[in-house]
Amino acid sequence: MDTAEFRKRGKEMVDYIADYLETIDKRQVFPDVEPGYLRPLIADCAPQDPESFEDVFKDIEKIIMPGVTHWHSPYFFAYFPAASSFPALLADMLCGGIGCVGFSWAASPACTELETVVLDWLGKMINLPEEFLAEKDGQGGGVIQGSASEATLISLLAARTKTIRRVQSEKPELTEADIMGRLVAYASDQAHTSVERAALIGGVKIKNVSSDDAFSVCGSALKKVLDEDKASGLIPFFFCATLGTTPCCSFDKLLELGPICNKENIWMHIDAAYAGSAFICPEFRHLLNGVEFADSFNFNPHKWLLVNFDCSAMWVKKRSDLIGAFKLEPLYLQHHHQDSGNFIIKRFRSLKLWFVLRMYGVTGLQEHIRKHVRLSHQFEHLVRQDERFEICAEVILGLVCFRLKGSNELNEALLKSINEAKKIHLVPCHLREKFVLRFAICSRTVESTHVKSAWQHISQLATDLLKTWEQNHHQQKQQ
Amino acid sequence: MDTAEFRKRGKEMVDYIADYLETIDKRQVFPDVEPGYLRPLIADCAPQDPESFEDVFKDIEKIIMPGVTHWHSPYFFAYFPAASSFPALLADMLCGGIGCVGFSWAASPACTELETVVLDWLGKMINLPEEFLAEKDGQGGGVIQGSASEATLISLLAARTKTIRRVQSEKPELTEADIMGRLVAYASDQAHTSVERAALIGGVKIKNVSSDDAFSVCGSALKKVLDEDKASGLIPFFFCATLGTTPCCSFDKLLELGPICNKENIWMHIDAAYAGSAFICPEFRHLLNGVEFADSFNFNPHKWLLVNFDCSAMWVKKRSDLIGAFKLEPLYLQHHHQDSGNFIIKRFRSLKLWFVLRMYGVTGLQEHIRKHVRLSHQFEHLVRQDERFEICAEVILGLVCFRLKGSNELNEALLKSINEAKKIHLVPCHLREKFVLRFAICSRTVESTHVKSAWQHISQLATDLLKTWEQNHHQQKQQ
Repeated sequence: MDTAEFRKRGKEMVDYIADYLETIDKRQVFPDVEPGYLRPLIADCAPQDPESFEDVFKDIEKIIMPGVTHWHSPYFFAYFPAASSFPALLADMLCGGIGCVGFSWAASPACTELETVVLDWLGKMINLPEEFLAEKDGQGGGVIQGSASEATLISLLAARTKTIRRVQSEKPELTEADIMGRLVAYASDQAHTSVERAALIGGVKIKNVSSDDAFSVCGSALKKVLDEDKASGLIPFFFCATLGTTPCCSFDKLLELGPICNKENIWMHIDAAYAGSAFICPEFRHLLNGVEFADSFNFNPHKWLLVNFDCSAMWVKKRSDLIGAFKLEPLYLQHHHQDSGNFIIKRFRSLKLWFVLRMYGVTGLQEHIRKHVRLSHQFEHLVRQDERFEICAEVILGLVCFRLKGSNELNEALLKSINEAKKIHLVPCHLREKFVLRFAICSRTVESTHVKSAWQHISQLATDLLKTWEQNHHQQKQQ
Repeated sequence: MDTAEFRKRGKEMVDYIADYLETIDKRQVFPDVEPGYLRPLIADCAPQDPESFEDVFKDIEKIIMPGVTHWHSPYFFAYFPAASSFPALLADMLCGGIGCVGFSWAASPACTELETVVLDWLGKMINLPEEFLAEKDGQGGGVIQGSASEATLISLLAARTKTIRRVQSEKPELTEADIMGRLVAYASDQAHTSVERAALIGGVKIKNVSSDDAFSVCGSALKKVLDEDKASGLIPFFFCATLGTTPCCSFDKLLELGPICNKENIWMHIDAAYAGSAFICPEFRHLLNGVEFADSFNFNPHKWLLVNFDCSAMWVKKRSDLIGAFKLEPLYLQHHHQDSGNFIIKRFRSLKLWFVLRMYGVTGLQEHIRKHVRLSHQFEHLVRQDERFEICAEVILGLVCFRLKGSNELNEALLKSINEAKKIHLVPCHLREKFVLRFAICSRTVESTHVKSAWQHISQLATDLLKTWEQNHHQQKQQ
């Protein structure tokens, strides 16, 4: 394909994407295909000779789209949102066109520098303490990672290195393996599994801290387990606090937890993957109070801030902690000013953040967040009006956890009937012993009418289900 | 920005990218900016109100481009190539438009399934043993990772888990920490630093195995260090063989190393990040002989196979080894057929591989590889004709390591004068005690004339340098 054909095909692709997004509400949100559907539809091996763009293009609708879960459909209420916006798509095209690889300043000065500056912008938007910013040549700063899981892993590893060094200087008789064997990380019993996985990767123990009735970890719960573990010779070194847990969007109590971590030499990382975007609104910023005690903080603009995946923003108070844990400099990477903290090869991901922040402006992004929160409260209100249902956790941002009053089996059956109807798409969670349905406001284009119609649909399916359920129950009783 | 404006701006962006790539040879390959150039050029914080696309767009040339290292310029001969092609750019646009997040089958069936099938295609193109393929419901299969570093880390971690389980079953008296403290990984002294970093992350020891005069690790070198380490109670568990080392593109001797690893229960991972793409040409496939002994194999289509970053292809013989090491399944991810081995959240990256394989065809990609190899031999030939220079390692694929006969200082001065002139861009390496210049054929559009003119330029700078160098030397002698 030469440049002339790229101009033609690129424009066709722009129109295809515009058409797709413009009419996405007409597509069934969840596909009909069964696992293994794709292999029989395509060749066994790559073609020897080039195929035309037309041939490939027509396979998008034939082979790909039938197997796509439409994350940007206004009927998609599963997981958490995956951000998407036109400015981000445009920036990503540019990122591909420039096609630089950013692993050092010299490899791509603009890539390294824009990232640092735009993460200062974003940090200021959520009113992060100055220590986390890079401007004025401070020790802190932000970097873009691929995911919150990466950010958690990196902070856990940095904490591990830092702790091993500290303990070795205090007790030179201990080997690294001795210390590793005693290190313990902590996170809420509501935390994302990526925290457990980070500990698994890092080869250290991890323990759950019990959350309270609001699914939040409070200071006394952490204190209790720390005291027990220290008494038995373990070395607590890392606590991952969650703001906006995945099951029900609960918030750990930073203001209680932070001082404990600081006092005990425990690295506090804050994972606000989903909720973090909301902190750009002054009315939600209080949820971040206590961040001043943290060593690292992370949230995902690629979830809720209209920046397409992947763009996970991470800040640390001391960049040297990250660099110290990983720095290995071969000659072919050496260059002045390489200490960006980006130890992973990366694309020019800051472009899309820059485009989105500028083309939406702070107010535009606040509007987006506020609309989602408003819609979740609308849904909450509808649920609360129906006595057959209950709300299972406080609705703070864009997620509503709800269920039919009754057994887990009943709620599993309800979810099954919802997802089999494929008009909307939801996923469940467990809150303690309860099987719960999660209704997450996701799409950029979702409006009040979609929420209302989703609720009517759920309500009707519940009515149908309860009818047969009671009949079965009645029959079972008679037998 | 509404859909109508996206249509307009998207097409403008396509033209901008086409223009950029069409005239990239007119831009200075390495930028003039100094570190810190960007911050003064942009605002201190994000705008409150939306800015127009025009305002953002004009900043690309004003703020971004002055700080871009042009990786796709035909005068860029640094590092290794970063792949770029029009079919990949088109596919990446589509990937952004669909904007799905692939972390389970249900989250995006097409994303999960296309990846598996297309990696079978690619595996067949390089004639991987069938055990590595997923078709016919085998135990093996491929996944796309973000980088070779990720692939190395994942295989090291899988090997760690597997070894700990095995040793614990043999010696139940050992704790996990005991075993961790004795594990040792190995790689060539020429291996990429990401192997050392993987061991650092995994909390295990790593040792260099000495390479021979051709910068290759042979069986006896590995055997020697294994015997020593086993005698002192250590547990060898992982060997990363490199095909196409970063400094000079040397190849470890798989046929000697593989049987040793198999016998000793050592996981053999093969990192062929750059060189792997060449194995699609029958004349280079012999370099991969011995892969049948490996547990995992990785190369980067985003380096040399015209698939834009990021697309690192990794195959394992037993997917269960990867899944076993990381599987943690919360309810909100549970679904049938989730065992894709993709434990990381990801974009729909297989689309670009699929587009490239189809629109180039195997023959088109072979032509690309062969052109690059031909050009490197052309450069080698030019160097060899000039008696002032020497070739420092066998030229096998697209990289030429060369230097002026003489001191390291002289060669450092030559590189400095080349990179300060900014007509071409190179990076150095060390081969043993020698400071060496690397000339890597990189751009998709580089031709014989660019190589010739690069050589004339280097040759002229060498002449100028040697003149002043000899004068200085002469003066020093006289003083």
